[in-house]
Amino acid sequence: MTHGTQVRAAIVGSTGYGGVELIRLLAAHPYVTVTSVVSSSNAGTLYSEGFPHLYEIVTDTLDEVDPQLLKSKADVVFLATPHGVSTKLVPSMLEAGLKVIDLSGDFRLKEADVYSQWYKKDAPEQGYLDRAVFGMSELFADEVKGADFVSNPGCFPTATTLGLYPAVKAGWIDPDTIIIDSKTGVSGGGRGLSMANHYSEVNENFKAYKVGVHQHTPEIEMVLSRAAGRPVTTTFTTHLVPMTRGIMSTMYATLTDKSRTSADFNELYRQFYEGRRFVRVRPTGTYPATKEVYGSNYCDIGMNVDARTGRITIISVIDNLVKGAAGQAIQNLNLMMGWDETLGLLFTPVYP
Amino acid sequence: MTHGTQVRAAIVGSTGYGGVELIRLLAAHPYVTVTSVVSSSNAGTLYSEGFPHLYEIVTDTLDEVDPQLLKSKADVVFLATPHGVSTKLVPSMLEAGLKVIDLSGDFRLKEADVYSQWYKKDAPEQGYLDRAVFGMSELFADEVKGADFVSNPGCFPTATTLGLYPAVKAGWIDPDTIIIDSKTGVSGGGRGLSMANHYSEVNENFKAYKVGVHQHTPEIEMVLSRAAGRPVTTTFTTHLVPMTRGIMSTMYATLTDKSRTSADFNELYRQFYEGRRFVRVRPTGTYPATKEVYGSNYCDIGMNVDARTGRITIISVIDNLVKGAAGQAIQNLNLMMGWDETLGLLFTPVYP
Amino acid sequence: MTHGTQVRAAIVGSTGYGGVELIRLLAAHPYVTVTSVVSSSNAGTLYSEGFPHLYEIVTDTLDEVDPQLLKSKADVVFLATPHGVSTKLVPSMLEAGLKVIDLSGDFRLKEADVYSQWYKKDAPEQGYLDRAVFGMSELFADEVKGADFVSNPGCFPTATTLGLYPAVKAGWIDPDTIIIDSKTGVSGGGRGLSMANHYSEVNENFKAYKVGVHQHTPEIEMVLSRAAGRPVTTTFTTHLVPMTRGIMSTMYATLTDKSRTSADFNELYRQFYEGRRFVRVRPTGTYPATKEVYGSNYCDIGMNVDARTGRITIISVIDNLVKGAAGQAIQNLNLMMGWDETLGLLFTPVYP
Amino acid sequence: MTHGTQVRAAIVGSTGYGGVELIRLLAAHPYVTVTSVVSSSNAGTLYSEGFPHLYEIVTDTLDEVDPQLLKSKADVVFLATPHGVSTKLVPSMLEAGLKVIDLSGDFRLKEADVYSQWYKKDAPEQGYLDRAVFGMSELFADEVKGADFVSNPGCFPTATTLGLYPAVKAGWIDPDTIIIDSKTGVSGGGRGLSMANHYSEVNENFKAYKVGVHQHTPEIEMVLSRAAGRPVTTTFTTHLVPMTRGIMSTMYATLTDKSRTSADFNELYRQFYEGRRFVRVRPTGTYPATKEVYGSNYCDIGMNVDARTGRITIISVIDNLVKGAAGQAIQNLNLMMGWDETLGLLFTPVYP
Repeated sequence: MTHGTQVRAAIVGSTGYGGVELIRLLAAHPYVTVTSVVSSSNAGTLYSEGFPHLYEIVTDTLDEVDPQLLKSKADVVFLATPHGVSTKLVPSMLEAGLKVIDLSGDFRLKEADVYSQWYKKDAPEQGYLDRAVFGMSELFADEVKGADFVSNPGCFPTATTLGLYPAVKAGWIDPDTIIIDSKTGVSGGGRGLSMANHYSEVNENFKAYKVGVHQHTPEIEMVLSRAAGRPVTTTFTTHLVPMTRGIMSTMYATLTDKSRTSADFNELYRQFYEGRRFVRVRPTGTYPATKEVYGSNYCDIGMNVDARTGRITIISVIDNLVKGAAGQAIQNLNLMMGWDETLGLLFTPVYP
Repeated sequence: MTHGTQVRAAIVGSTGYGGVELIRLLAAHPYVTVTSVVSSSNAGTLYSEGFPHLYEIVTDTLDEVDPQLLKSKADVVFLATPHGVSTKLVPSMLEAGLKVIDLSGDFRLKEADVYSQWYKKDAPEQGYLDRAVFGMSELFADEVKGADFVSNPGCFPTATTLGLYPAVKAGWIDPDTIIIDSKTGVSGGGRGLSMANHYSEVNENFKAYKVGVHQHTPEIEMVLSRAAGRPVTTTFTTHLVPMTRGIMSTMYATLTDKSRTSADFNELYRQFYEGRRFVRVRPTGTYPATKEVYGSNYCDIGMNVDARTGRITIISVIDNLVKGAAGQAIQNLNLMMGWDETLGLLFTPVYP
Repeated sequence: MTHGTQVRAAIVGSTGYGGVELIRLLAAHPYVTVTSVVSSSNAGTLYSEGFPHLYEIVTDTLDEVDPQLLKSKADVVFLATPHGVSTKLVPSMLEAGLKVIDLSGDFRLKEADVYSQWYKKDAPEQGYLDRAVFGMSELFADEVKGADFVSNPGCFPTATTLGLYPAVKAGWIDPDTIIIDSKTGVSGGGRGLSMANHYSEVNENFKAYKVGVHQHTPEIEMVLSRAAGRPVTTTFTTHLVPMTRGIMSTMYATLTDKSRTSADFNELYRQFYEGRRFVRVRPTGTYPATKEVYGSNYCDIGMNVDARTGRITIISVIDNLVKGAAGQAIQNLNLMMGWDETLGLLFTPVYP
Repeated sequence: MTHGTQVRAAIVGSTGYGGVELIRLLAAHPYVTVTSVVSSSNAGTLYSEGFPHLYEIVTDTLDEVDPQLLKSKADVVFLATPHGVSTKLVPSMLEAGLKVIDLSGDFRLKEADVYSQWYKKDAPEQGYLDRAVFGMSELFADEVKGADFVSNPGCFPTATTLGLYPAVKAGWIDPDTIIIDSKTGVSGGGRGLSMANHYSEVNENFKAYKVGVHQHTPEIEMVLSRAAGRPVTTTFTTHLVPMTRGIMSTMYATLTDKSRTSADFNELYRQFYEGRRFVRVRPTGTYPATKEVYGSNYCDIGMNVDARTGRITIISVIDNLVKGAAGQAIQNLNLMMGWDETLGLLFTPVYP
């Protein structure tokens, strides 16, 4: 594809927060045009009626979920659909010859029984699980390049594994001691109504949820096991922060060599992420806050070795809707198409 | 100036919120390069140390406030300085041959005594007051075009007068009945520390401030008087909302012809703002919320005529740091340079 | 009733925010014991399962809505039920010999057609409308004393009419010029799920709602008409603030005698509310913020006369769940029983 | 002291958040009267001028810091002063015969060099360190009873050690594996102005701070070492949540006997805290949120054993200004005086 040709993109599940963010980000992409916004409900209505921030910006009406229709209007489909829905939609989309980037959790895990155990749903067919490339852009870019079906990582796994991978891969921390304490803004819970997202219940409140049972646990362990070269089990706890956007993972592990310093780790991470513009390894002694990546595709990482305890604390932040969803999906599209991975994604964080 | 040539911009007061927002927005401008970030304190230190969201994005060190230095590095200077400071800096900047866009309140009012009365400071020299073009982009674009010194409007006056001007100009509301109830996010108070901006004092709190004495009152009256063709006095009250960004002005006035409807006003406003992309007149019966313009240069307006009372309620929202400060300043630069006023400013609002 | 005897109270609609607040406040009342928590759904389940903040404090299970059961367990019933539900429940409750305090809007308006027009529901029978005493405690205490059926005022009307009544009654402002700009925290919207209360839609957002059609409009006008001695029509606009609790009404009116000052009005209000402990008239030149009454039964009022425009700005704040609902309901119970109206209600505001 | 006699209390540092909260809570205490509010600055001014939520409630003017004056007006002194200030004030207060409850960190640690190392200040004299009873009410009540000088615990150590003590004491977790991930509302940072508490910097932001160097670390280790009967070292990380009140500590440790279940631990904790009304051990499978103890003196605890990893996750929440400061201080006063420890403290949490 030459630069003169626009790639046409359809967004299925366009009325969820992931879909809305894809629309915002793709509006600034030089080579992509959104040609269809799709919703299983509300087809035929004006998109901007439900999203007045896009008044006079998006003038489309919502399309139905119809692979042939999509094929006629688009080259690539983003599935920003709930878990379980992608399982049903992907085969017909691929069969229709569309490139597919799935933002749900359906195709991330490669073992059907692990999926069923954590997601409490029937897994997709194994053939599709095998075919889906797991799109953690900074770790597995080579596999994403040229793929036609990418499973976009979860928000927590993105922040977490980008923060842990270099240390595990290098053998500098003991994978059996990893503890992950994650915190997310409320938009991670989506646009569906629930008491858990009701303003007066969340505001001025901090709570843990899905303790010990979060479905992102096996996804994190899958990536860390790959880094370690052997199965890794972790303790992973998620918390809800009274804010809209942002994820922080605070991660703890025991050093394999207690003489290593914060500066050593900082240098290790800088080398590992050399040339990867969206990972910013912060100077030793400083730590990122979620607001510092707000609205952007950055993942910022800081770390501290505590000589008293022989442990490291690693802090990693992302915007859950960008690097944790829509942004990384576009980054994966860039890789799939052979473009510069930063194309259309160099948004400066919105601060304050 | 051809498109191949970059305009070089300096930002004085770059460590305040207005300055920080200029950096974010100008990073996306195709014809402008920020060549100097200036601060009266901290000169010589790395800019991103104080603003880690710009780590690896802005690598400059802070420059001193020195007109000759600025002249050597820049073509245009944005003054995002506190009231009273611009008064002192502008003459030397203009003398050095720099184009100047001043975001402070110093040069907005054209009568020195009115300035002194409301700002409690000595006014600039009358010659400079006369020379400064008041840059309410959608209302006075013709005057801004080709100017070399523009005084950028205040945040409240922008939201307010864009919401009232068409109705006053048309004579459809009685200017003597106008009441303006405005609400702003906390970033409008700037980055300077004060109990009024202390988190625990502001969070989960709503309060009025500067009741009857806000310095934006005469600026609003200046614009409305121009619309009415005679002096207009208004009641203007400001409130602080526990959020970072956003301004809403809710405005009330008595109709001059009680038979006019919401739809009539809606049509009047649509015609008035025809072709002005940053003003979005919302469909009759709907009203804008501040989040719907978050991070963008839009001013959205809705209105309702209440036949019971013969009054109209007009609601106007902006992002105080964009349309209310940095965004309109860049829009004015675009006009000054003869470019399309939307250049570099078509950011989609960040939602949610 | 002697002090040794406890009044037994039932709370119908105990799982809404009004009901939950009644439980919190009544726990500190020296003469009242909550003997039944009632819910149309969930009867039989442990109350604290849905409200873990009351774990080990409230150990009751939810009762069904059954007048005979309530009569056997309680002397007084608080109806914290949605509009339309109270209409159906009140007759049987009164018939069973229970004292009733209704927190819904069903019995506030005395004209059935006005109710139907604004609430879009069938009005209660006129006999019950006539029988219900409108319990604006500070204004109509004499009528509440000894009543057995009190209709508790709405949250906006409470803040608003307490702020306007003395000036209208005294004839110091022109009732035809009154404009009311109100702002409320999100808990005012209740515990029912809706997009309007969804965290990510509300947080960092400020919006107007029900512009020109809010059902509290006729209630406010009813009280102001009583003060003026003739029909009064007002412009009333409501806004949603990203916080949980708190209401502010900012009110504007034209003076009938332009020579009166802020201090004159302050003195008028102090005399009017002499001895009414829950209304705090703030010193001239200061204005209350919502947080300053958080969790308490106070209504704080400040005012400013603007000689430039001949208008007054009056600011009145309450905690919508206390003075605007549960607190005033208990204050009315105190009055009904002939007790000191402050009994059990002298909570110090929670600050910060 | 008989119940008929009121204890007179002075509050030094009454204009900080700890002092303000003492005033709110003591207003409801049946046996205590606040007779002096003290501030090193502003002496002579009306207290409520700075704290309008107390208008007409507190009518005192601020006293100077003068031990003899305090002795003449009070029986007990609460020191809600910054670290370093209490060191200087305590000796003269004790010498004057006043009972002292110190809310600062100055007298918590018993080893002067450890204090100096973590607080970067000179430690108090060893004699006073020895004399101060460490007032973790639920753990060391026997020592507090009858004491005349109590050092009130820190906010993080309160939430944390109440959550860990029973398990460490029982030998059910390995003390060397303990990791503590704590989160606090912004009021924990006090009322002093700093960029770290500036609204626009904190709102919609989540950040870690004092990573590896928080001064509460040795206090936590002191208590856990006492539980373990040997020195314990921990990893402790603190985070700032965009909310005003509330602390959660999420704590991780490896089981010593992997066959123990969540229910086993739940039962252990229930037995340990039997009769201690302010600790609420939540039912197995549920976890407390900070809002569920808002404004109250409760510490709520939940826990989950993860059989996959052989670790336990313990979650403990408090209101940092109540159980983490003013509330526990009053609880300690109750113990010192030989009263029921719950006196004046049975506030129901404010929810929502």
